[in-house]
Amino acid sequence: MNQTPSVPDFDCYPVTRTLRSARIADGDVAVRWDDGSASILPSLWLREFSPDPGTIHPVTREQLIMLIDLPEDLRAADAEIRPDGRLRVTWQPEGLDSVYHPGWLWAHRPESPGDDALPPRRLWTRGEAPRVPLTTVDGAAVRDGDDAAFQAWLTAIHVDGLALIEKLPQDPSVVPDVPSRIGCLRNSNFGTVWEVESRPNADSNAYTSVALPVHNDLCTREYVPGLQFLFCLHNSCEGGDSIFVDAYAVAEQLRAESPQSFEILATVAAPFGTRNRDSDHRFCAPVLELGPAGEVSSVRYTWWLRNPMAGDTARIKAFYAAFMRFQRLANDPDNQRRLRLRPGDLAAFDNRRVLHGRTAFDTASGRRRLRGCYGEREELESRLRMAARAERQRLVEQAGPPAARAAS
Amino acid sequence: MNQTPSVPDFDCYPVTRTLRSARIADGDVAVRWDDGSASILPSLWLREFSPDPGTIHPVTREQLIMLIDLPEDLRAADAEIRPDGRLRVTWQPEGLDSVYHPGWLWAHRPESPGDDALPPRRLWTRGEAPRVPLTTVDGAAVRDGDDAAFQAWLTAIHVDGLALIEKLPQDPSVVPDVPSRIGCLRNSNFGTVWEVESRPNADSNAYTSVALPVHNDLCTREYVPGLQFLFCLHNSCEGGDSIFVDAYAVAEQLRAESPQSFEILATVAAPFGTRNRDSDHRFCAPVLELGPAGEVSSVRYTWWLRNPMAGDTARIKAFYAAFMRFQRLANDPDNQRRLRLRPGDLAAFDNRRVLHGRTAFDTASGRRRLRGCYGEREELESRLRMAARAERQRLVEQAGPPAARAAS
Repeated sequence: MNQTPSVPDFDCYPVTRTLRSARIADGDVAVRWDDGSASILPSLWLREFSPDPGTIHPVTREQLIMLIDLPEDLRAADAEIRPDGRLRVTWQPEGLDSVYHPGWLWAHRPESPGDDALPPRRLWTRGEAPRVPLTTVDGAAVRDGDDAAFQAWLTAIHVDGLALIEKLPQDPSVVPDVPSRIGCLRNSNFGTVWEVESRPNADSNAYTSVALPVHNDLCTREYVPGLQFLFCLHNSCEGGDSIFVDAYAVAEQLRAESPQSFEILATVAAPFGTRNRDSDHRFCAPVLELGPAGEVSSVRYTWWLRNPMAGDTARIKAFYAAFMRFQRLANDPDNQRRLRLRPGDLAAFDNRRVLHGRTAFDTASGRRRLRGCYGEREELESRLRMAARAERQRLVEQAGPPAARAAS
Repeated sequence: MNQTPSVPDFDCYPVTRTLRSARIADGDVAVRWDDGSASILPSLWLREFSPDPGTIHPVTREQLIMLIDLPEDLRAADAEIRPDGRLRVTWQPEGLDSVYHPGWLWAHRPESPGDDALPPRRLWTRGEAPRVPLTTVDGAAVRDGDDAAFQAWLTAIHVDGLALIEKLPQDPSVVPDVPSRIGCLRNSNFGTVWEVESRPNADSNAYTSVALPVHNDLCTREYVPGLQFLFCLHNSCEGGDSIFVDAYAVAEQLRAESPQSFEILATVAAPFGTRNRDSDHRFCAPVLELGPAGEVSSVRYTWWLRNPMAGDTARIKAFYAAFMRFQRLANDPDNQRRLRLRPGDLAAFDNRRVLHGRTAFDTASGRRRLRGCYGEREELESRLRMAARAERQRLVEQAGPPAARAAS
């Protein structure tokens, strides 16, 4: 038996379940856990993640061998639970021994429910949306490096789609500095950081003082930015209140009211196009994108950047009818959360879920200046997973190595 | 009849077809063109793009009214071809007259084949891939602002998935300067610009000197960057040759060889995850993404960032078998274009189509230093459309206003 050293996994996994038995079944490994549940670990699946330095690079922790480099007749020939609680598997014809940590195996077993670092989303309810409670974090706490406050803000952006930091210094550097603490920002032809202020010869309705009914930004791109940050520097004009709508909730209302309209918006590709003088971005995709469980995962609704649709007349008419149903719901005051941003407020929202808009404002009555940027949902999710990883690490350090528990 | 002024479209459209007749049909507008073809222009479709300043903002050229703001009983009440060749439609009960440019109408009619600014892609052929001709543009021409040379490079990246600029100055500023001329770059936790050189304590296999079989980058992200740029500053080591593979061609070979394997890779979500110490990006999606016509539109194949798959045993095994078929084809020398980058060479490739890799290199024998960045396919496409727009503009200026042609 070759005793290959185990490469420490870059992540730590607490031993919440211990292995009770292991046997070979059709060349795969069948294990049983101490809660009575069983896992079949397919041979290639298990072999690919063998934590030995010939399979996983000890420093980068990435796979070093391709699956096609393995013997064609690869099979698990022997399996046992070691006294320290780890699973040892002997591979033939390689003669390699692989040793797996029970915490890692439990977390990654094929029956695992998957990524549990992200809490479920909480949709706004029609009628209650105007008063939906918003997490508002104190800017002083964020400035002073209070991790819990920052984490509460991140979690609320994920769960509710919208969260605020208030009383930040009225300093333009807040954007990009605070959003950059989540992860890298998204650049566009508007620049990484942009300002929303009424200006002459505007290249977008946003840069005028007209009312902007709710919408989301950059729907002319294949990948609509997942996060948007708006920092208020001045807001002394008459008008210019912010409006937010949970488009996931609106889409669910549409699904209940007219399943056929929902289906059309989830399947018929709608064309969008920019109106810029120096770029020409276009993208054609359904207004609603669905995730693996049929849940709405992304909304594309910059309605003033819609381009003429191609296709047959009946399909176009059905799309218009469905789109207008959605538009009516999105503009129903019962679905709208109004908010007046104060100087020092930083609003963050999921740009693929929460639509935003504003009432018209009068530039003669004061000044309205917002500073914004885009980020990615996946950077937020990475931060939430890092927090979960730190918590796992704490549990592991508390519990000691797996043997301590296996022997107990 | 209200005579509303027409807002000039931000784009110019040459009058390649003239309108012969227009009539009302079921509240929509039915027109006939001078080539005998007919178009039905659905009322809401036509009304939404009325080029009057109440519908389209004269400066931003974006829609100002929501569809739900239109009368519920909106209908086209009258339509005629004006002497200048434009289509006039009267809307009731609004009493609004809308006037449409025939070039715009022809380009956007529902029967239009759509965006014609992007030439078709040209897949590499198995067996011929090792010698596939690559567009190679002279660096001096690009430096001197030769638009045609730059445009040839862009077109080749789109069509062939890979194109070079050679003999650029060995100056690190080439990246990001040259790629930035296409559009904004894509940031990541590696930074907007990164260097590939063997280094201790690497956070990625790329930063070692091991061989890297072909792969693409950032598959742990929801949106895999569409473009990658690699600029060679030093390449004097033994080894370190570049390898490129057209994964669209490989996927088509798989489809022909095993339709079932192709189907599995196009439908079964495969988990990917980074191995970083300070971030935790994960994404789960099929290896092959298909476009509206069933063509492969994106490939996700950073095989060394694969995470353990969940699900039932049979599905996992079927996935492994399909993935290994794809991997065998991607590693078939008959599909691989080898290339030794020379200092001053800038390679650009479609990171969601063309896989890249390298042979191992010996750091004792010299130095290998590449400088790279990511961009987006849509920025490239925007540039190609801008070139098409300039060409349309030229045709329009040559031809004069539509009346000139309508009267001829």
